Amino acid sequence: MLYVISQRAMELESEGKKIIKFNVGDPDQPTPREIIEAAVEAMKRGKTKYSFYAGENALREKLASIHNVSAENVIIIPGSKWAIFSIIYLLLKNGGNVIIPTPYWTAYELAAKSLGAETRFLKTNMESNWKIDTEKLRNLIDSKTRLIMVNNPNNPTSKIIDNEVLEEIVEIANDNDIPIMSDEVYRDLSFVKTKSILDFSGNHILINSFSKTFAMTGWRIGYIVTGEKLAGKMMKLNQMTFTNVPVFIQEAALKALELKQKIADEIKKIYQQRADSTYKILSKTELEFTKPDCPFYFFPKYSNLDSEKFAFDLLDNGVAVTPGTAFGDYREYFRIALTMPEEEIKLGLEKICEALE
Amino acid sequence: MLYVISQRAMELESEGKKIIKFNVGDPDQPTPREIIEAAVEAMKRGKTKYSFYAGENALREKLASIHNVSAENVIIIPGSKWAIFSIIYLLLKNGGNVIIPTPYWTAYELAAKSLGAETRFLKTNMESNWKIDTEKLRNLIDSKTRLIMVNNPNNPTSKIIDNEVLEEIVEIANDNDIPIMSDEVYRDLSFVKTKSILDFSGNHILINSFSKTFAMTGWRIGYIVTGEKLAGKMMKLNQMTFTNVPVFIQEAALKALELKQKIADEIKKIYQQRADSTYKILSKTELEFTKPDCPFYFFPKYSNLDSEKFAFDLLDNGVAVTPGTAFGDYREYFRIALTMPEEEIKLGLEKICEALE
Repeated sequence: MLYVISQRAMELESEGKKIIKFNVGDPDQPTPREIIEAAVEAMKRGKTKYSFYAGENALREKLASIHNVSAENVIIIPGSKWAIFSIIYLLLKNGGNVIIPTPYWTAYELAAKSLGAETRFLKTNMESNWKIDTEKLRNLIDSKTRLIMVNNPNNPTSKIIDNEVLEEIVEIANDNDIPIMSDEVYRDLSFVKTKSILDFSGNHILINSFSKTFAMTGWRIGYIVTGEKLAGKMMKLNQMTFTNVPVFIQEAALKALELKQKIADEIKKIYQQRADSTYKILSKTELEFTKPDCPFYFFPKYSNLDSEKFAFDLLDNGVAVTPGTAFGDYREYFRIALTMPEEEIKLGLEKICEALE
Repeated sequence: MLYVISQRAMELESEGKKIIKFNVGDPDQPTPREIIEAAVEAMKRGKTKYSFYAGENALREKLASIHNVSAENVIIIPGSKWAIFSIIYLLLKNGGNVIIPTPYWTAYELAAKSLGAETRFLKTNMESNWKIDTEKLRNLIDSKTRLIMVNNPNNPTSKIIDNEVLEEIVEIANDNDIPIMSDEVYRDLSFVKTKSILDFSGNHILINSFSKTFAMTGWRIGYIVTGEKLAGKMMKLNQMTFTNVPVFIQEAALKALELKQKIADEIKKIYQQRADSTYKILSKTELEFTKPDCPFYFFPKYSNLDSEKFAFDLLDNGVAVTPGTAFGDYREYFRIALTMPEEEIKLGLEKICEALE
C-alpha cells in the first residue's frame, strides 16, 4: 500500500496536479550545495569507472572512524533498503524465520515475503507507547530464528527503543546467538539521544543511510557495519548485483560526513519545529498519537477508520498519506511525513481533519 | 576468478603499482563531457529525490522509441548485471534450470549459483568458431527449463551469434515456451551487424547497458525490455531493493542516447584499430584465437596453459588478464580487454608473450 499510494501520487503530480505528499519521507530541502559540488568535482576528475565492490577506501575509513570499527567492517550499498533485502537474502536463503516488531517499515515485510522467509511479528501498541515486550520476543524465538530486525528510531512511530529495552533485546539475541539488524537511518536526526546497536557486544548489523540526514534520498547510498564474515558476503553480493555505488556519489557522501554536524543540526531544528506545530494542531483533534522522538513521521489513530479507503479518498482531494496497513495490522492508523514547509503541513492537516469529520 | 584478479589489480594500483589492466572491460575513454554536464544540470535542478521505481518517463520513452516497443516494456536498472541477478531471481526462485552457453560472462554463473538455480551449460568451442549447436540446446531443455541466457555479442569471445543460429534458438525457445534473456551490451559497438532478440517474436528479454557504448561503466545504469508482466515484476523488485537509479544519472543517460550515433561511431573506430593491431601482433605468436566481431575482448588459447597460475604470475609482472576458468571450462584460455591506448596494449602483449615463452 505504501508503494501503491506513492506511485499514484507521483503519477498525479506528473499530470500537473498539486499533491501534498505526506506519504513519503523525502526531505523537501535540496541536497546541500557542497555535497553536489563534491560529486561534480569527482565526475570531472574521471571518477566514472568501475571500482571496489565494498566501496571506496576513504569513505569506508571515515565511517569506520565514526563508528569505532575497522574499515573492513563497513560496506557501501545503494541505500539502506538494499541492506534489508540482501541481509534477509544472505541469512535466510536456506530457510528459517525472522522476527520483526510491528509497526515495521514496509520494505522489511516485502523483502521477507519476496524471499520466502518466514516472518514472526512482534506487535507493539500505541497504548504501551510502542514499547517492545521482551518477554514476547523471547517466546517468538526458536531454533530456526536467523535474524531479529529492529528500527531504532522507528518508522512509522518515530519512537526510539529505550536503552534498557534495547539492552534486553541484545541480551536475548546474544543468548540465542541470533544477529540483530538495527536500522538506524533516523538516529542522527533523533530529538532524543539513543544508543546504537554498535554500543553493545555481539555480532550484529548496523544499517544506515545518507538519505535522511543529508537530504540525499535520490542519491541511493547507505552502508552497513557488521562482522567481517557477513561484510565479506555483502561485498560478494554487491559484486554480482550492481558492482559498486558510483564513485562520484561516494565522494559526495564523504563530503556530507565532513559537514555532518552542521547539516544534521540545521535539518533537525527544522523538523523539531514542524513536529512541535503538528503536535499542537493534532492535539486539538480526535486523533490519538504519541510524541515523536525523531523527525518526519506521526502515526495517528482514528477509531474505526479504514485507513486504506481513507488514503485513496484523500488522494483525490490532493493529500497523500500512507495507510497503517502498510506497516502491519494497523488499519485504524495512518502515517504522515512532515517533509514539506510548515504552511503546507498546516494546509494538509486541515484537509485531513475535514476528511475525518 | 575474474573478481579475484580484478580486486587484486585494483589493490595493487591503489598501492601505487602500475598495472596494465587487460582484465576488465572498462573503457579508458572518459565519459563524454556532454553526458557529465547533463548530470550536473539535473543535480542543480534538484533531481536528487526519490522517483519512479521503473525509471523516468522521458528515458523509458526514448528507449521505447529506439526499440520500437512501449514505455511500459522498459525498466531502468543499476547496470545490466542487476538484470542478470534479478531475472534469475524472478524466474527461478521456485526451482527449475537455466541454460547458459559457455564461455559465459562470469556474472551469469555466479548469480545462478548464489540463487540456487540449476545451471545447464552448452559448451561452444573455438574450433567451431564459437558457434552454438542448436541440436545440443534442444537436448538440454526439459520441462523444468525456465530460461535460456545468451550473450550476443559474446563476452569473452567477442563473437556474434549468426542470424540463422539465433533464429533457430528463438524457434526452439518459442516451441518450448521458454524466455530467452539476451544480453546485448556490446551490440551497439559491434563491428558486424547483428540482430537483436527484439527482432524476433516471442516473450523474450533484452538487457542492455550504457556502460560500454558511452564509457559510463561507473555510473551503473542499464535497462531491460520485456513483456509487461515481467517488467512489472522487475519494477516491484526495484521498489524493494534500491528504489530507483538516481534521476540525475538517468538524465545523463538520456543525453547519451541523444548523442548515441556520434559517440558510438567514435568509440567503435578506436576499438577497431586496437583490435586490428592486436590481431596482427597475436598472429605472430603461438596463441590460437578467433577474429573479434565486437570491441574489447580477445580470448586466446595456449596449449596446456594453466591460465589461473599464469594470471597470478603475470599480475606480479604488472599485467592483469582474466583466466579462462572464469568463463567456464576453458583452462587453456585467457581473456584480454583492449581498454587502454595502443602503446600500452603493445607493451602488455609483449609481457604476455615473454611470460608464455
